[in-house]
Amino acid sequence: MKNELGITVKKMENFSKWYDQVVTKAELADLRYNVKGFLVHKPLAVSAMKKMYYYFERELEKRGHKPVWFPAVIPESNFKKEAEHVAGFIPEVIVDNACRQQKLSERVALRPTSETAMYTMYAKWIRSWRDLPLKLYQSCQVWRYETKATRPFIRGREFYWIEAHDVFATRNEAEKQVIEDMKTTKAVMHEIFGIPFFQFQRPEWDKFPGAVHTYAADIIMPDGKILQQPSTHMLGQNFSKAFNIKFKNKNGQEEYAWQTCYGPAIWRIFAAIIAIHGDDKGLIFPWEIAPIQVVIIPIYKSQNKDLVLKRCVEIKDKLKGLEVYIDDRDEYTAGWKFNEWEMKGVPIRLEIGMKEVETNTVTIFRRDEGRKINVSDANISEYVEKVGKELSANLKRRAESFMSNMVRSAKNLKEVREALKKGGFVRVNFCSIDEDGRACAEKIKASLHADVRGKRIDVDEKPEGNCVVCGRKAKVVVYIGKSY
Amino acid sequence: MKNELGITVKKMENFSKWYDQVVTKAELADLRYNVKGFLVHKPLAVSAMKKMYYYFERELEKRGHKPVWFPAVIPESNFKKEAEHVAGFIPEVIVDNACRQQKLSERVALRPTSETAMYTMYAKWIRSWRDLPLKLYQSCQVWRYETKATRPFIRGREFYWIEAHDVFATRNEAEKQVIEDMKTTKAVMHEIFGIPFFQFQRPEWDKFPGAVHTYAADIIMPDGKILQQPSTHMLGQNFSKAFNIKFKNKNGQEEYAWQTCYGPAIWRIFAAIIAIHGDDKGLIFPWEIAPIQVVIIPIYKSQNKDLVLKRCVEIKDKLKGLEVYIDDRDEYTAGWKFNEWEMKGVPIRLEIGMKEVETNTVTIFRRDEGRKINVSDANISEYVEKVGKELSANLKRRAESFMSNMVRSAKNLKEVREALKKGGFVRVNFCSIDEDGRACAEKIKASLHADVRGKRIDVDEKPEGNCVVCGRKAKVVVYIGKSY
Repeated sequence: MKNELGITVKKMENFSKWYDQVVTKAELADLRYNVKGFLVHKPLAVSAMKKMYYYFERELEKRGHKPVWFPAVIPESNFKKEAEHVAGFIPEVIVDNACRQQKLSERVALRPTSETAMYTMYAKWIRSWRDLPLKLYQSCQVWRYETKATRPFIRGREFYWIEAHDVFATRNEAEKQVIEDMKTTKAVMHEIFGIPFFQFQRPEWDKFPGAVHTYAADIIMPDGKILQQPSTHMLGQNFSKAFNIKFKNKNGQEEYAWQTCYGPAIWRIFAAIIAIHGDDKGLIFPWEIAPIQVVIIPIYKSQNKDLVLKRCVEIKDKLKGLEVYIDDRDEYTAGWKFNEWEMKGVPIRLEIGMKEVETNTVTIFRRDEGRKINVSDANISEYVEKVGKELSANLKRRAESFMSNMVRSAKNLKEVREALKKGGFVRVNFCSIDEDGRACAEKIKASLHADVRGKRIDVDEKPEGNCVVCGRKAKVVVYIGKSY
Repeated sequence: MKNELGITVKKMENFSKWYDQVVTKAELADLRYNVKGFLVHKPLAVSAMKKMYYYFERELEKRGHKPVWFPAVIPESNFKKEAEHVAGFIPEVIVDNACRQQKLSERVALRPTSETAMYTMYAKWIRSWRDLPLKLYQSCQVWRYETKATRPFIRGREFYWIEAHDVFATRNEAEKQVIEDMKTTKAVMHEIFGIPFFQFQRPEWDKFPGAVHTYAADIIMPDGKILQQPSTHMLGQNFSKAFNIKFKNKNGQEEYAWQTCYGPAIWRIFAAIIAIHGDDKGLIFPWEIAPIQVVIIPIYKSQNKDLVLKRCVEIKDKLKGLEVYIDDRDEYTAGWKFNEWEMKGVPIRLEIGMKEVETNTVTIFRRDEGRKINVSDANISEYVEKVGKELSANLKRRAESFMSNMVRSAKNLKEVREALKKGGFVRVNFCSIDEDGRACAEKIKASLHADVRGKRIDVDEKPEGNCVVCGRKAKVVVYIGKSY
């Protein structure tokens, strides 16, 4: 019997070990590939992430983005065009030095992100105001030579994401775009996947290399640590000047374009879904992205096997359009199958035995609540869909309630220290997220091993009193947390 | 005005130039990226290929395959496990020699194909007959250091494909799988995309490195040259012995597994769709994969603009579920838009002006036939869908008829030479596609610059008389052609 023991640790007692067990035992990924930091993604994870891609791509296209595929390799010279960007990324990229048969004319790197691949082409494509706005995205992998410890779906040398790169004629349009990107994050990650987050403007010292401003979604993981989720960057004219992206405006004058980029990492959002919705038994998939939405378990003795299986197929036929699997494997018991599919996060289980056949009913088990009820099989399709959506709504409510319990305010460093012990965010008055505040953030980092995550942009918060570190008059309310 | 001149060469007069113009002018790809042999894929191509992936993945999953994602890098030592495979692929792979910050413990290559990445893991996953069959696929890019001239979507150093890797307990099941794979090719490439092909068993000297047998679909391009399409390989136990993929059978004895692999290259099939369905005006997309299925062109003077646009929106609303674009850009004329969307292969154009508004009609233009008709706008949705499907059926018929006209029989080498001048396939009696026939094939290659593509497996053909080259008794009917 595979996965004989199921998950053996409790999520809130030892989150780290729980997470590793779920990844391996629920067969999301195999960590034994023989290049360090690279993951083998198994069908359950890939099927779910394909659906996650679908929802993000749909939302991006609704908002005027079109798909592109750019090369996975980027010449070294492209990297060097934007000074801050190269400083931020060159140490991370995997550089290809040689080809066995024939030297490439230049060293190339596997893309760690695609600004420097795409913007050389943007400079060729954009000529006039008529070519703007240009809003393109690609769904792809990127490679970064991470030196920190890797974790499946959280940090790796190869990961899966979407990157959107937009160009505008005016600063104002670019500023609107970063707001739109955060709306995209909310519409998909929060509304569909049920993962709530705060939206931050990052401090000056924690921006994307080459950006004017960085905005990011932060979530709280079950261990109380903060995990960065999709970020969007106001690039201003930094890259357009470095890559010479110019357009003729309506008056015939040349101007540098305004740019933004946005990067929802499907990988990390998947980590959030595993971590936040899961429970002590294992995964719980939201209805919308479940690779199997409904598993049907036939329960029979040999003399009534055919009758029971026939009814299972009839019920499956009624559930057209849903992802349904009849687990009719003889080599496993019904109880073993219950545990297996609960660990693998299937939202709804239907049990069908002779009792159900005789009474024209099915027994429904809902993964998040763990209760069974027996219902008539008339209108089973509408009923199952309703239950599936209720499960998603419940997962979202639970996640929101967890998050709101993990935010505390503190008036001084002692209180910050105490609050940090409980995990989550600590809300404080702070001198500044401009360069001016860097020294205070560094003190927090040194003494409390925590980061200033920035100023929320999803709510308007007025500072009161003085900075918790330097005592100068506070100009901003910030959130502090220990991060991944 | 972009693309002022449209396509300036006729497809059947100068196919090569026609193809290059369509790729560039219809904005499928940009060839100016600054790493040689790598393509920038533009939205029209990506949107179509995403749909192509969808149809292949659906068919593979229907037949029991599940999706995985394996790393893009493969350690050198993995390649060296199967002797023929390494000989076939190492010269092509792009090898990463070094990382800037830190040496990898071993040289790694970007995957040229994933046997050697996946089979090391298969050896860990497969223990018992219960784990079989194992049928997995991944949709991904691969990289090959091509030294021949690259062509967009036909040959490149980075291309997009699907690879399926299956494992079975018995030889018989593996043999059935290669037949199933050819059915998958037929169900999608021929039935949905309208690209007919012949199915060949390749001669012994033209197999995939490491395979026992290779089967491949060949199509005829408009210039009469042969282009290889999806191939499927009976790997026998070659790789299972090299990678130690063993299972305990029902009697508790260990056996080496039987394997197959299958590789539909979405990129090349896209090239076939461009080439075979296109005409002198440019692209024609089959209805099922058209990124825009219906373009609506409003035709108005300023005094009736609002009225006409309102009707366009009403018609678009009636076409829910289809990919519809209203081209209401003021900066271009209706005539310019007609040419633009014809070149870009949109299957159906609806023209809506005051005449149509007043008579509750729309004027429909069908891209393949080039005729306009005016129809009532009642039931427009069903009507448009019917016309779209007729277009796909017509493209398929045209392609089948082209292909059947490009096959000729020849009784001797003189006739082969004459027939090859007309392009397409030449059908001949031949000594053998086993090792024994290699010398004859080499003579054909040397004297006629053409290849023996193999023996058809989609029809049963009996040889008559003697081999066209050596004069020995023919054991097989083969097809000869000049290939890409």
